[in-house]
Amino acid sequence: MANPTAAMLVIGDEILSGRTRDANMHHLAGAFTQIGIDLKEVRVISDDHSAIVAAARSLSKQFDHVVTSGGIGPTHDDITADAIADAFHVSIDVREDAYAILKNYYAEKNIELNEARLRMARIPQNASLIDNPVSGAPGFTLENVHVLAGVPRIFQAMLENVIATLKGGSPILSETLKILQGEGDIAKQLSAVSGAFQDVSFGSYPFQEDGRHGTNIVMRGPDPERLTRAKSELIEKLEL
Amino acid sequence: MANPTAAMLVIGDEILSGRTRDANMHHLAGAFTQIGIDLKEVRVISDDHSAIVAAARSLSKQFDHVVTSGGIGPTHDDITADAIADAFHVSIDVREDAYAILKNYYAEKNIELNEARLRMARIPQNASLIDNPVSGAPGFTLENVHVLAGVPRIFQAMLENVIATLKGGSPILSETLKILQGEGDIAKQLSAVSGAFQDVSFGSYPFQEDGRHGTNIVMRGPDPERLTRAKSELIEKLEL
Repeated sequence: MANPTAAMLVIGDEILSGRTRDANMHHLAGAFTQIGIDLKEVRVISDDHSAIVAAARSLSKQFDHVVTSGGIGPTHDDITADAIADAFHVSIDVREDAYAILKNYYAEKNIELNEARLRMARIPQNASLIDNPVSGAPGFTLENVHVLAGVPRIFQAMLENVIATLKGGSPILSETLKILQGEGDIAKQLSAVSGAFQDVSFGSYPFQEDGRHGTNIVMRGPDPERLTRAKSELIEKLEL
Repeated sequence: MANPTAAMLVIGDEILSGRTRDANMHHLAGAFTQIGIDLKEVRVISDDHSAIVAAARSLSKQFDHVVTSGGIGPTHDDITADAIADAFHVSIDVREDAYAILKNYYAEKNIELNEARLRMARIPQNASLIDNPVSGAPGFTLENVHVLAGVPRIFQAMLENVIATLKGGSPILSETLKILQGEGDIAKQLSAVSGAFQDVSFGSYPFQEDGRHGTNIVMRGPDPERLTRAKSELIEKLEL
């Protein structure tokens, strides 16, 4: 059976302006690969209500899961929760369960739960909460969309809680063969071997080392024996 | 007048599997911000013909420019050129001008221009070539889509050649105000100032330093005087 599929939606002007380098994409990609969920697409869009609504709808229809990052804090540019509610035509308001979490969290820290912070208790109707062990304010899952914070250590902590609820597939394993020849010298043999192993995906990544051209061939697939055999066959074909 | 808009299409299984961390997005974002082209969306998709065709068509319609990275080398997984040709319903074949470039490049290096390398001379009909000063094989521009290599130093060199042909807008400048208070404490004042400066975009980015919460407010816009004034007003409102 094919693995479940997923897409990620990164919401953040700061990434599109070049101010910040996104770190969550790389983390999510690694985590999903481990549990056998195939990340098929990542979209980075700006803090724009209609852009978020359109992307969330489109990705939610195409893939089994959508993970969003960013835009769920207390400031005016945190508009993700409202946009996701709109995407699924549900209402959104301060919800008792989220309010209780924030109330406890800030009471313990002796911080005022003011109007701005209260915005973080706005949760779309029918969504289930995602626990945030780092900074209190919860994320949520609505339909197949999981809404997480953008700050990397909060994103990562929330993602663990989401992953605990997901059914993965076959973890995708990989074997790498490092070859001290340029891509153009091995392309023909690589193509032949890749054609013979339809259940293995072959990626070819050129590099330079001490002024010489080399290529890393990465073979990926669920069956470790097939990966080993593909690697052997490539070594044989290339007379390494 | 509004700045030209752009999207980026990153083609690469290696990024979606978590093997590689993309570097080109961050570089493009910075370069476009400098010349006043607004990067509105980035999509990362896998090495899949129909996914590339669909994304290229969709982004090309929505934005003034599309920059792609990855998938134009000599191996079987390099399918970007064919997909872009399909996206615009034009034919693709080895083209004389690209062939001449490769012939010279490999002759100088005493490397055989074999069948695999010849694939890199496949250029869609009507496309114009983008010079590649690093490794010979050219990129190309078809309609409003600029097709660049994925290896970061080749991507960057090709991008310089593309940028030389683009008409930018007003460079987007930024001012940052570092505040040693949490987002929730300043959200109200921030919202008021941001409402009064419609030509400035305000981003709020929380951080922790020595166990204390802080917030970086980033103000972005084309007019340096307005940025300075927005910053002053925020300082005044927050009584800093």
